[in-house]
Amino acid sequence: MDFSSFLTSLATSFVIFVILMLLFTWLSRKPGNAVVYYPSRILKGLDAWEGGSRTRNPLAWIWEAFSSTEQDIINVSGVDTAVYFVFLTTVLSILVLSGLVLLPVLLPVAATARTLTTVNGTSKGTFNDLEKLSMGHVEEKNPRLWAFLIAAYWVSFVSYFLLWKAYIHVSGLRANALMSPEVKPEQFVVLVRDIPPVTEGRTRKEQVDSYFKSIYPETYYRSMVVTNNKEVNKIYDELEGYKKKLAHAEAVYAESKTLDKPEGTRPTTKTGFLGLVGEKVDSIEYYNEKIKELVPKLEAEQKVTLREKQQASALVFFTSRVAAACAAQSLHAQMVDKWTVIDAPEPRQLLWTNFTIKFFERELRQYVVYVIVALTIMFYMIPIGFISALTTLDNLKKFLPFLKPAVNIAAIKTVLEAYLPQIALIIFLAMLPKLLLFLSKAEGIPSESHAIRAASGKYFYFTVFNVFIGVTLGGTLFSTFKQIQKDPGSLVTVLADSLPGNATFFLTYVALKFFVGYGLELSRLVPLIIFHLKRKYLCKTEDELKEAWAPGDLGYATRIPSDMLIITIVYCYSVIAPLIIPFGVVYFGLGWLVLRNQALKVFVPSFESYGRMWPHIHMRVLASLLLFQVTTFGYMGVKKFYYAPFLIPLPIISLIFFFVCKKKFYRSFCNTALEVACCELKEVPNMEQVFRSFIPPSLSSEKVDEDQFEDALSQVSRMGSFAA
Amino acid sequence: MDFSSFLTSLATSFVIFVILMLLFTWLSRKPGNAVVYYPSRILKGLDAWEGGSRTRNPLAWIWEAFSSTEQDIINVSGVDTAVYFVFLTTVLSILVLSGLVLLPVLLPVAATARTLTTVNGTSKGTFNDLEKLSMGHVEEKNPRLWAFLIAAYWVSFVSYFLLWKAYIHVSGLRANALMSPEVKPEQFVVLVRDIPPVTEGRTRKEQVDSYFKSIYPETYYRSMVVTNNKEVNKIYDELEGYKKKLAHAEAVYAESKTLDKPEGTRPTTKTGFLGLVGEKVDSIEYYNEKIKELVPKLEAEQKVTLREKQQASALVFFTSRVAAACAAQSLHAQMVDKWTVIDAPEPRQLLWTNFTIKFFERELRQYVVYVIVALTIMFYMIPIGFISALTTLDNLKKFLPFLKPAVNIAAIKTVLEAYLPQIALIIFLAMLPKLLLFLSKAEGIPSESHAIRAASGKYFYFTVFNVFIGVTLGGTLFSTFKQIQKDPGSLVTVLADSLPGNATFFLTYVALKFFVGYGLELSRLVPLIIFHLKRKYLCKTEDELKEAWAPGDLGYATRIPSDMLIITIVYCYSVIAPLIIPFGVVYFGLGWLVLRNQALKVFVPSFESYGRMWPHIHMRVLASLLLFQVTTFGYMGVKKFYYAPFLIPLPIISLIFFFVCKKKFYRSFCNTALEVACCELKEVPNMEQVFRSFIPPSLSSEKVDEDQFEDALSQVSRMGSFAA
Repeated sequence: MDFSSFLTSLATSFVIFVILMLLFTWLSRKPGNAVVYYPSRILKGLDAWEGGSRTRNPLAWIWEAFSSTEQDIINVSGVDTAVYFVFLTTVLSILVLSGLVLLPVLLPVAATARTLTTVNGTSKGTFNDLEKLSMGHVEEKNPRLWAFLIAAYWVSFVSYFLLWKAYIHVSGLRANALMSPEVKPEQFVVLVRDIPPVTEGRTRKEQVDSYFKSIYPETYYRSMVVTNNKEVNKIYDELEGYKKKLAHAEAVYAESKTLDKPEGTRPTTKTGFLGLVGEKVDSIEYYNEKIKELVPKLEAEQKVTLREKQQASALVFFTSRVAAACAAQSLHAQMVDKWTVIDAPEPRQLLWTNFTIKFFERELRQYVVYVIVALTIMFYMIPIGFISALTTLDNLKKFLPFLKPAVNIAAIKTVLEAYLPQIALIIFLAMLPKLLLFLSKAEGIPSESHAIRAASGKYFYFTVFNVFIGVTLGGTLFSTFKQIQKDPGSLVTVLADSLPGNATFFLTYVALKFFVGYGLELSRLVPLIIFHLKRKYLCKTEDELKEAWAPGDLGYATRIPSDMLIITIVYCYSVIAPLIIPFGVVYFGLGWLVLRNQALKVFVPSFESYGRMWPHIHMRVLASLLLFQVTTFGYMGVKKFYYAPFLIPLPIISLIFFFVCKKKFYRSFCNTALEVACCELKEVPNMEQVFRSFIPPSLSSEKVDEDQFEDALSQVSRMGSFAA
Repeated sequence: MDFSSFLTSLATSFVIFVILMLLFTWLSRKPGNAVVYYPSRILKGLDAWEGGSRTRNPLAWIWEAFSSTEQDIINVSGVDTAVYFVFLTTVLSILVLSGLVLLPVLLPVAATARTLTTVNGTSKGTFNDLEKLSMGHVEEKNPRLWAFLIAAYWVSFVSYFLLWKAYIHVSGLRANALMSPEVKPEQFVVLVRDIPPVTEGRTRKEQVDSYFKSIYPETYYRSMVVTNNKEVNKIYDELEGYKKKLAHAEAVYAESKTLDKPEGTRPTTKTGFLGLVGEKVDSIEYYNEKIKELVPKLEAEQKVTLREKQQASALVFFTSRVAAACAAQSLHAQMVDKWTVIDAPEPRQLLWTNFTIKFFERELRQYVVYVIVALTIMFYMIPIGFISALTTLDNLKKFLPFLKPAVNIAAIKTVLEAYLPQIALIIFLAMLPKLLLFLSKAEGIPSESHAIRAASGKYFYFTVFNVFIGVTLGGTLFSTFKQIQKDPGSLVTVLADSLPGNATFFLTYVALKFFVGYGLELSRLVPLIIFHLKRKYLCKTEDELKEAWAPGDLGYATRIPSDMLIITIVYCYSVIAPLIIPFGVVYFGLGWLVLRNQALKVFVPSFESYGRMWPHIHMRVLASLLLFQVTTFGYMGVKKFYYAPFLIPLPIISLIFFFVCKKKFYRSFCNTALEVACCELKEVPNMEQVFRSFIPPSLSSEKVDEDQFEDALSQVSRMGSFAA
């Protein structure tokens, strides 16, 4: 890719961004679109244009984003979102501090490196304007390489310092959230798995109750035995479906009652497959009948489930936070694979079906999933390599000769050259997250947020291996493949060797990501269009409309890994081609701004894990840093710089830093520290309410009275004190 | 070593053993020796010859050892001793089950392997009678090697099965001991380290009290801040020394009052260095004066210590076992390196000076010690190799020509050949344990038993690396050294190659160990002689006499590693030279018998760790098994057996077995399971007594009243309930 196509790509991206931003300014002021641009506020019952931002200047949202504090974010969107912003700020600071030193120093050093040699006519390659500013422009064994070596140290130490501060900060955020005086149900509950078989003549409930009552005579409240809800969920979903359809049909009927035809037209439906075949019946009557049929069926199934489908797992409720935090960290049974106890996640993120997987089966599943993921990572590498090798313009012309006339037009050529490989890559990557989330859940993880963290981790390794290493090596794939096969240790050298050649590719990739990606994010064009289509053609009831503009959450499972990919790219090129740093700064700066707006006004978090995402983020930033240090060392080797071994301490320091952080901070992210849990509550917790919040909707019913709960949702005499 | 010298060595060992056993039978019946042969019983206030064993036949002790149950051992000597016997029985069973199959099958297979080839005259080496019975006698690529391959599987699976059963059994032993209804002080206490600096205007005691009172309002009892006892210990030791000397002088004076001289001779002493120089004074007066001087000094120092030498560490007392067990497992502070809490060890095994080492300093010390130990293991390898190479008879003649005449006498020659290398080895190894224990304590480990486990682990790796690998390679050291240097991966092959040649060496080594080692153990000749010498020439008072026959404990730090060395040797030769199995059986059988006697009648355990030694033993037996599997695979390779790769699954199965055991059992050996701790106590614990049992002797004093304890040994109003 030459310099002009790079500039074209950059300019196009920028134009798209400006258009999207103008669209946003225009669209977001229309009242009809408020539910798309301010759903979070509306759901909270606030005025969408609080503070009159509708009438003020079009860039008011920027001001609002900047003036919002971390506490605002925590109040509106929870600790997880705040932690995500800590991550953005930290990376941004790392890049700004690195750029402030590296750009003024390294760019002149690189640019002036070859004046003499080119005069002598011995310059061996042709350097375009961009490449002149990179380390590739410095000759082998040149003492100027010292500047690059020291730069690697600077970047590393800036990272250590800021990551350390961020970890302390996030740890404080988590502690503050956990010691909040509000009653949070999940802080009073633990999840018990691997309960041994019940002895003859005893119910599961009695077993659980007597076990925990003997250990916690004072603080035990009651237990809820986990049941197999498959059947009852099916009936419940069916019932809810009919209720929705009934409401829809009634809305349609009401609408048809126009002035001309006051009696209206009763909607009809067909009873067969998908409402397409079968007998034609009156919808309202038909759905009412169905609901009447299903309600007793559901109640009967609820009873059966509670009584007969009890599993070897339970939720155990305590009257104090400290007791629950202690219980979640302590070994209960002499055999570690019995009565395993962990913190209960929030009710909304429970993965019920995973509760009953046994201890060693979970271990086994984990390893099986790791192997599958490793294989996926390996085998996806090959197609990506092919795509990258194919989608160069010359190859296109060669393999698809009928494209030649179109490709030869200068404008099309430049655009194609600029975007083809990137678009192929982005489409390719869009297919994966669902699979990885499914695999993570198959590991037997009991909570949604944990599954998302696991999926995010897998996705990170996938993107780094396949996109970064794959694309970098892809251009030279066929020539280097044999060499790596011969000597696997040469991977680092080969990788380092092919890095500079791909610098412009990644510059474009990052620019595309931030201009178009964040432009789309801010303007919410896709949700807007979908919402308006649905509103016009599908939605009849209030509930349906609400569903149509439901904003969703930040989507950590894919957002964090793709940010991580950008960090990896920027890190790895930061010394080799420092020009990438400003692009990284824009990416994270723009990201911070746009997402701050979205976090305040759009996204509604679907769970709260009190910052448990952070250790995961921290580790992966360090992994990127390590990759940077290793590739820089490799590239110094390629440049035959004698003092390259001075870089060897860096990866070692990174590992030590990682272990120290892990030792010092990690455990408090897995468990709740007791000094945090022992803070006083605002009010005596209403344990009945805490208990009820964990009953799955398919089992909860206004009619189900205390008697029925006697079965799986055990009831013991509440003699324990309610004081925390 | 040829066959006759092997027989000589065996016979000599056996004769020594018989003599030692007869000595034991004779000596142990003399009433004056009772304190040497039955000290444990005497200390418990029992009759030494309970059940009249003194009058019965001389082998009555064997009957007593066999008829004692595991519960007897636990009652007399604690869980740790019982666990040691589980270890002996397990290894014995493994060897018996292996031997029952391997000996009748492999010996004929090996012995008949070469009849044809020797007839043809192509036999390439000379095989002595022992070597004909080993795998070395089977030719390369011979299908008879299948028998040896299957034998390796048999030995492995027998080991897995019995180790699994043993782990379950030991886990039960530990649980039973921990749930005992007796009040054991250490079950109510946790050790808190890394307490953050005290804030201005607050005492350390207040800080600790308020911290734990807010977390455990119901179950917190009080705390004892750890003080720097160096000074007070010094004065205390001095005082105790003078007290002993006074008692001694008084006894000497009393003795001198004979009928002839009823006024007696007052003993005198010199005040200078070691009582050898300086002014001559009356001993009794002098010591009395010194004691009078030191008592107020000690009291003053006690006050100063309690008030001003408080450290960032404390013992915290709870009124219930469950609370203490919970606290020891839970994270207390948001920063993991603050307020770290662990189970308190027994009062008698506290290593006070290690309590104040900081979190990361402990980590660092651990790694530094590991490096030092690794270096020790490496550098000792060279001298041992030299010794082994030097002490062959030919070398002796070469380097020490003046020995030639003596060495040439047949009898001396055989004895020297049989014992020289072994004795060199044994002396060499005797020097090490102290160093390793010192290093383990330097890691910052807070309890004696833990330090002993750590030392034992280091000693195991030392013996396996240096004795087993060192001696095996030592014979061929100079020739193979270069080969290993060239290709480190060839270590296994080289090791496997030189194994068969050293089989007789190790046969003799094992035989020497069990006949002479256990003979000396049983007869207790050395303690007996020392006791009688002391009694005659040194001891004047009852206390001094008691000290002279103090029996000591089993000495796990060296006993277990040396047993492990035998296991490693027997495992590694079990398939290659199955003749070693009976030797192993005798070693562990005799060991069981002799030590059972000693455990019942002699040794007094110096601590109780409730079987925490077991995971350590288990892991090291598995490490030996792994070494066996790898060397057997290597030797199959040396024999050029095509199907040798069929052995590869074995090490993998061993690793899986190890991880499964670790997952299932290990945590309950580190922490107390709550279902165990919640068992009811026989009586309401006397917390004051529990608290007092942890006060170090140098700080406890009858005169020190409650007021003084207000300082470091905090006193809060005991409003918490006393019920467990």
